[in-house]
Amino acid sequence: MKLSSLFLHTKREIPSDADTVSHILMIRSGMIRKLTSGSYEWMPLGLRTLRKVEQIIREEMDRINGQEVSLPLLLPKELWMETGRWNVYGKELFRLKDRKDAEFCLGPTHEEIITDIVRNEVRSYKELPLMLYQFGAKFRDEIRPRFGVMRAKEFLMKDAYSFHADEQDTDSYYQQVFEAYNKICTRCGFKYRAVEATTGAIGGKFSHEFMVLAETGEEEIVWCTECGWASNTEKAGCLPPIQQGNTDELLKPEEVHTPNMRTVEEVAAFLKAAPDKFIKSLIYLADNIPVMVLIQGIYEINEHKLMEHLGCTELMLAGPKTIETVTGAPLGFAGPVNLPGKVKIVADYTVAALQNAISGANKKDYHIKNININKDFIPESVTDLRKIIKTDTCPGCKKPVTFNRGIEVGHTFKLGTKYSKSMKATFLDKNGKEQFYIMGCYGIGVSRIVAAVIEQSNDTNGIIWPVNLAPFTVIITPVDYKDVKLKEVSDSVYKKLQENNIDVLLDDRDERPGVKFKDADLTGIPVRITVSKKTVENNQVEFKLRKSPDMKMIDIPKIIETTTYELSHY
Amino acid sequence: MKLSSLFLHTKREIPSDADTVSHILMIRSGMIRKLTSGSYEWMPLGLRTLRKVEQIIREEMDRINGQEVSLPLLLPKELWMETGRWNVYGKELFRLKDRKDAEFCLGPTHEEIITDIVRNEVRSYKELPLMLYQFGAKFRDEIRPRFGVMRAKEFLMKDAYSFHADEQDTDSYYQQVFEAYNKICTRCGFKYRAVEATTGAIGGKFSHEFMVLAETGEEEIVWCTECGWASNTEKAGCLPPIQQGNTDELLKPEEVHTPNMRTVEEVAAFLKAAPDKFIKSLIYLADNIPVMVLIQGIYEINEHKLMEHLGCTELMLAGPKTIETVTGAPLGFAGPVNLPGKVKIVADYTVAALQNAISGANKKDYHIKNININKDFIPESVTDLRKIIKTDTCPGCKKPVTFNRGIEVGHTFKLGTKYSKSMKATFLDKNGKEQFYIMGCYGIGVSRIVAAVIEQSNDTNGIIWPVNLAPFTVIITPVDYKDVKLKEVSDSVYKKLQENNIDVLLDDRDERPGVKFKDADLTGIPVRITVSKKTVENNQVEFKLRKSPDMKMIDIPKIIETTTYELSHY
Repeated sequence: MKLSSLFLHTKREIPSDADTVSHILMIRSGMIRKLTSGSYEWMPLGLRTLRKVEQIIREEMDRINGQEVSLPLLLPKELWMETGRWNVYGKELFRLKDRKDAEFCLGPTHEEIITDIVRNEVRSYKELPLMLYQFGAKFRDEIRPRFGVMRAKEFLMKDAYSFHADEQDTDSYYQQVFEAYNKICTRCGFKYRAVEATTGAIGGKFSHEFMVLAETGEEEIVWCTECGWASNTEKAGCLPPIQQGNTDELLKPEEVHTPNMRTVEEVAAFLKAAPDKFIKSLIYLADNIPVMVLIQGIYEINEHKLMEHLGCTELMLAGPKTIETVTGAPLGFAGPVNLPGKVKIVADYTVAALQNAISGANKKDYHIKNININKDFIPESVTDLRKIIKTDTCPGCKKPVTFNRGIEVGHTFKLGTKYSKSMKATFLDKNGKEQFYIMGCYGIGVSRIVAAVIEQSNDTNGIIWPVNLAPFTVIITPVDYKDVKLKEVSDSVYKKLQENNIDVLLDDRDERPGVKFKDADLTGIPVRITVSKKTVENNQVEFKLRKSPDMKMIDIPKIIETTTYELSHY
Repeated sequence: MKLSSLFLHTKREIPSDADTVSHILMIRSGMIRKLTSGSYEWMPLGLRTLRKVEQIIREEMDRINGQEVSLPLLLPKELWMETGRWNVYGKELFRLKDRKDAEFCLGPTHEEIITDIVRNEVRSYKELPLMLYQFGAKFRDEIRPRFGVMRAKEFLMKDAYSFHADEQDTDSYYQQVFEAYNKICTRCGFKYRAVEATTGAIGGKFSHEFMVLAETGEEEIVWCTECGWASNTEKAGCLPPIQQGNTDELLKPEEVHTPNMRTVEEVAAFLKAAPDKFIKSLIYLADNIPVMVLIQGIYEINEHKLMEHLGCTELMLAGPKTIETVTGAPLGFAGPVNLPGKVKIVADYTVAALQNAISGANKKDYHIKNININKDFIPESVTDLRKIIKTDTCPGCKKPVTFNRGIEVGHTFKLGTKYSKSMKATFLDKNGKEQFYIMGCYGIGVSRIVAAVIEQSNDTNGIIWPVNLAPFTVIITPVDYKDVKLKEVSDSVYKKLQENNIDVLLDDRDERPGVKFKDADLTGIPVRITVSKKTVENNQVEFKLRKSPDMKMIDIPKIIETTTYELSHY
């Protein structure tokens, strides 16, 4: 393509609302334009890359026998009521009515729709396993859209759903998808990790996130350099502390006056006790019922773990009124001993290892020391409820762990029978018996991948595309296209590259070389071929890879050979 | 592909709500599934054809230098307010709010969005002409969705928008698009006509519809067999009657008592006068202002012409109260003579040719005869306001016209400066002077094309695809795939066809030959190759084209040659 006929408008200035490198570079390189908060227009240059990502994903989905469909975006309330998600999904779901007052949402995900198709069309185990997938717009009414296309209200997703007759087949297919996702990440040139993750609003038995490593990532992951274990920190399991046994003498609880001291730090300093001697006692509302949650003072509660443990759909810290009702004291003096009323108490493993600990006394301006689990208070359960920290070890091999930030580009879920049961989706098994489908679902943020690639691969001059995703693989920059000789050489190189099926862009604009080079760098095209008076005199062109500062002179007859070689080794 | 791994569920029964052949066959062949009224899921088979249509359109848009973009579906109210269409568009526009109460619509068309892009990105005439296009879901809250994907609430469109520096360039580019649309129709195998059409909610200077001829079409078109003129009947111009001159003596108006006779027919019978002597006088509300519209008694008003003539955005027949206010008489006795008050009167050409005509007398139970234009009443304007009828002649060459029903698959508009003016979209011309863009816009119903093809090309057994759009071009039907020899031959033919890049489906199911043949016919695959014991004995297969009942035996080594030849002559 000739650049003069490409709708390309690069920008020198940094957009005021852009908050990450990829957002800045996508706007500056003219790939996308902002329509409104969280909503972007894909310009021709950007769309070329988006389609390349789409095609890579399509190929990998087809390879594992996925079948492409295309589903509506306006989804009827009725199906979402069957699974209960109409009520659970909350404010992220765009809802609207048609002129006849029928209610719809704009699909953020399509489990209900696909399960409805399969329950109506498939009857027998003979048709299983089955995987259907689509590419389509997805909608989420984000409270704070940000990072450009990375967290947008409207974005392009590949969503896939699989149906199986038994657990074994589900697991083995899940493994195939897992490998396909690895291939996709590899083909996109990612440094990434597949990590264990929580299941959130999708639900199901377990899930993995595909995390592209990037400082600007919204998610935090933790992984073991030794055994390969990796997890979203939300999900990451923490080992119980190594129990030291009852080495200390168990003392008698004793109230101490701690006027106006509410935090662990304040009380510790006042009592000259180490903060790890403290039991933090937090009052949560789990589906509106108060629960006291205990954890050693130096740790933080992982609310995802807590929700999963309690089996609740809503969780929030209680306000001062509830705290006072539950503990009989104002905020800052809660503790598990001498509670005035009945409240469920759950404790993190770390509490079980404490001896002669300190907590609030459920009395204004008082704490209590020398309290011991199972003697002075008995939690209903003791389990892993804490956030993993840097000094933790791998829950598998107990070796040290490493933390990274990441961008979630894919998420695979083993759903189990969550949707098939609630929607009564059954098939007849080998024995003619009705069974619920076992399901998996697998998403990839197609538009997000584009941003994630840039986030990992850029420099001060712009994007550095991997060859697979570059909107064009070669750009020819004649320093003066009006010069007859330079035009002739440029056109001939352009033609040769085209004939060899190389995606080439010819910068035929009447611009200074500096402008052309800046745009070539900004748009990240892997190979730049510069045609100047000097090079042409020697029947050569200047050859430069975007990712390297080096330039070399190439004899024009060798242009295809060199380009092909360099692209395949890029 | 092997049929056993294709998610295909053909149906024998006719869906109860299906109202046209294409709707029935798309459901029965398993191409689509209904989600809700006016909303369809594209299954793998249907999606293959849809993508082929998309690719044909893409190629033709690229050929005329169109550049593909992808725009959001949720469109902000603000841009729609700039053109005023937020208020004009009415109930067909799906509207919704986000969690911050910002208002959006689901895009039924993207003029505002694209004009906003161009006004922000383009500054100079040097970048013109420019054409941007996209494929995307479009939304219309149809009052009565019907005909399957043909009139749906959510459907796939290609919409294109062009920007020009002057009228001449706009017109010459319009002609290029016109030819591209002709190519698309030809490549889809359509019998069609491009007709002049009204511009409706899109607006602009003029437009053409691409009408696929079909009995079941929702639109009516009229065309001249002689000179090629063709028009939507809404738009079709009617010649004024051949004026006979004042051959009759102009008589004096005379009121006649016509008790309880309100219609032309009743009064004509009573007065023993021909209905063509009557002037029908209709009271309309044009943007809420009453207007009297006159037409010869045997003709009907074309409200599209009337709206355009009056330049109003809303038009409706007045109710009894308004009629009484305007004429002083109840419904059925209106006429242009002796009106009690002032009201604008417009007349169709046919009224100007009448002499000694009859109309209502604006008095209960009275008509008036012998009235004459410009003597007894003076309309503000006399123009073409009537519906064309079978006995009309071509407005160009005055030869007889033919009527047909049609399905609109494409619509091209010369918009002029309607959007650029209201949105202040300007560029600098050669002289550095600010000018409004002159625009065109061009839509094609991608999903509708699929239905229109079927509407034109089917028989009692199912769809008959043209090769270009067939989901697969060849189906191999072994009569018994469990038979080792038949499997071996089928597999080898399958492999050979695949190696020659022929889209082939192998029906490897364990089904009776009758079932396989029925599905092959229903899904409309152009070539069926049947492998049976008898054919294999002679090293042959049975070769049948979908569109013909004939079968022939082909030597297996000649399979590629024959298939290629027959497909290229299909």
